[in-house]
Amino acid sequence: MADGDMERVRVELGPRSYEIVVATAASSSAFAAWLRPTLEATWAGRGCRRALLVTDDHLSRIAEEAEAGLAAAEIASERFTIPAGESSKSLEQAARAYERLAALKADRHTLVVAVGGGVVGDLAGFIAATYTRGLPLLMLPTTLLAQVDSSVGGKVGVNLPAAKNIVGSFHQPIGVWIDTRSLESLPDRDYRCGLAEVVKYGVILDADFFDELERTSDALGRRDPACVRRVVAHSCRLKAEVVTQDEREETGLRAVLNFGHTIGHAVEAVAGYRGDIPHGEAVAIGMVAESRLAERLGWIDPSATDRLVALLERLGLPTTLESDDLDSLVDAMGRDKKNRGGRIRFVLPRRIGHVELTDLPTVDDIRSVLVATRNAAGEVPRGD
Amino acid sequence: MADGDMERVRVELGPRSYEIVVATAASSSAFAAWLRPTLEATWAGRGCRRALLVTDDHLSRIAEEAEAGLAAAEIASERFTIPAGESSKSLEQAARAYERLAALKADRHTLVVAVGGGVVGDLAGFIAATYTRGLPLLMLPTTLLAQVDSSVGGKVGVNLPAAKNIVGSFHQPIGVWIDTRSLESLPDRDYRCGLAEVVKYGVILDADFFDELERTSDALGRRDPACVRRVVAHSCRLKAEVVTQDEREETGLRAVLNFGHTIGHAVEAVAGYRGDIPHGEAVAIGMVAESRLAERLGWIDPSATDRLVALLERLGLPTTLESDDLDSLVDAMGRDKKNRGGRIRFVLPRRIGHVELTDLPTVDDIRSVLVATRNAAGEVPRGD
Repeated sequence: MADGDMERVRVELGPRSYEIVVATAASSSAFAAWLRPTLEATWAGRGCRRALLVTDDHLSRIAEEAEAGLAAAEIASERFTIPAGESSKSLEQAARAYERLAALKADRHTLVVAVGGGVVGDLAGFIAATYTRGLPLLMLPTTLLAQVDSSVGGKVGVNLPAAKNIVGSFHQPIGVWIDTRSLESLPDRDYRCGLAEVVKYGVILDADFFDELERTSDALGRRDPACVRRVVAHSCRLKAEVVTQDEREETGLRAVLNFGHTIGHAVEAVAGYRGDIPHGEAVAIGMVAESRLAERLGWIDPSATDRLVALLERLGLPTTLESDDLDSLVDAMGRDKKNRGGRIRFVLPRRIGHVELTDLPTVDDIRSVLVATRNAAGEVPRGD
Repeated sequence: MADGDMERVRVELGPRSYEIVVATAASSSAFAAWLRPTLEATWAGRGCRRALLVTDDHLSRIAEEAEAGLAAAEIASERFTIPAGESSKSLEQAARAYERLAALKADRHTLVVAVGGGVVGDLAGFIAATYTRGLPLLMLPTTLLAQVDSSVGGKVGVNLPAAKNIVGSFHQPIGVWIDTRSLESLPDRDYRCGLAEVVKYGVILDADFFDELERTSDALGRRDPACVRRVVAHSCRLKAEVVTQDEREETGLRAVLNFGHTIGHAVEAVAGYRGDIPHGEAVAIGMVAESRLAERLGWIDPSATDRLVALLERLGLPTTLESDDLDSLVDAMGRDKKNRGGRIRFVLPRRIGHVELTDLPTVDDIRSVLVATRNAAGEVPRGD
């Protein structure tokens, strides 16, 4: 592909700034031509000649292509493979990887390359953050969700049996290389789950982008390469703007990314006992329920929620709650690590394109919108 | 004690700046009066009302005093106890602590308090660095080595079976409270090991401080409180100056702290197979051998090494090498994670009070000074 078909996004984080490239079916030499100067521009990457490539056992073809790209950049890589699936995001797999790095006599100029979805990226990132207190990290996200969400922002980590994503670090990559060709083989459900986060960026930050998603939902649904590249790159750009302002989640600004996630995480957690609702679908349902919560506070008009529901449905995402276990859902929200002082905190829209943090909703408000979302009634009684 | 008897050192690290207090037999109320505003001054500490106190099973009396101090600051603490000794600095103990924090429903405003020596501080710091991607950390170091070295600078981590200190992070505490009364019950050998690092600060950074140590070695040896407070505080000040310039060990400036450690680490590692040379004693021997390496390069005069040997001996520290296994020693130096490109890197004195980084010494140079240090001859053939 011509370089003009590549989208580039700069993530501004002072000395930890880096570039995200979004390409389609790029050659090994195009990748190497980008990687070599990218490495040389950072302290840890300078002089790098070795890499540990972390991937899962479903991705051997994509891993081979990545190895060819690394070889073109004169980097000798060894592959570390984890079983595909969330259960690999564990301290046990991290310990296995550490032993491998020790056997390789890795030093602070040994590159860690993540080739895979969110599980691979989060685990590889945690290993890179902690081995010798920091190895350079290169992200090659292969799922839409990882491309637009987890590979941007530096959050890395593993799960404990007791809680997801609870052990981790902030560790920025030296660069992110997204080749949307990996999406061609992505299962439909996984692709749609990534679109849920894309829609979220429109709601929280950019009404024009939301309009564009409404206009291009057909092309997006059939994975038109140019449309996908533009949407992925703009999603990264929007997330990067937030991360730039609150790299370590300290000022509260980064919390805007949590729209749909307070209820979404609860839906995911409760479904975990009995069935399987993937993250993106849970977020889609969570966004609808939280949009109704904003209605209940008088912040938005029901027509905004209607637009959100219509867009999510056109993209094949669920908008109604299956569970009727309201007690478990409310209880799960109370365990969110972003809460303070016992109140449940939400990020809710004031209009499409703008959200605000609030702990105004009461448990009654929450139960009420869960009921409305379960019934798919779309009509919520106003709070007092 | 009067506040005038407290020494205060400010560690300047922008938004991560913090204060080190050095006191003797301070009251709970004095501690609480310092802690409350210290917490309120940081994002994570603000509103803190809960703590996990990490300590080892030899320190229950000091841990009880710390708990009284926390209670005076209106912080409810739970105690997490590890077995004393280096083997507790492990991923396994970290996993135990994570489970405990999850059971406590810890959030980002839950304080982690390290009460102990280097093992407790490094482990507690790693837990604080990684649980929810960062909990506020308070250090109460109880050994001289932890007070002058490991509690300043933000390096935290655990060991792997394959290598020490290889998994970790940089995580600055919100404050360090040193009460030198803990040194009263410290075994003599442990106290002297801390003095080795104190002598190191004089050699690498401050000739006047080295002079002062020569003059006050008797008072220091008998642990005179005023003398100890001043020496601890000044050591922290010197280390803080280095850390301020190279917080994450990226510019090479922080490497000056490594004087005595390239050979010292090798002595420690090789002794690990057959005997027991604690870190401070290994560093004392390493400083003498590396000082002789500087002589061999023509950087310093033998009289400088003589002064160093005399001071270390007055402080009860070893200055000669017991091992005759030169091959193992040289091999161990080759594994140091600070090496680049196969050369062994040293930090060597140009004069007392100033060191420089170099990879000039050849393996022959190194073997030659090891032989000289083993024989305690103190005479080194000049290199070509």
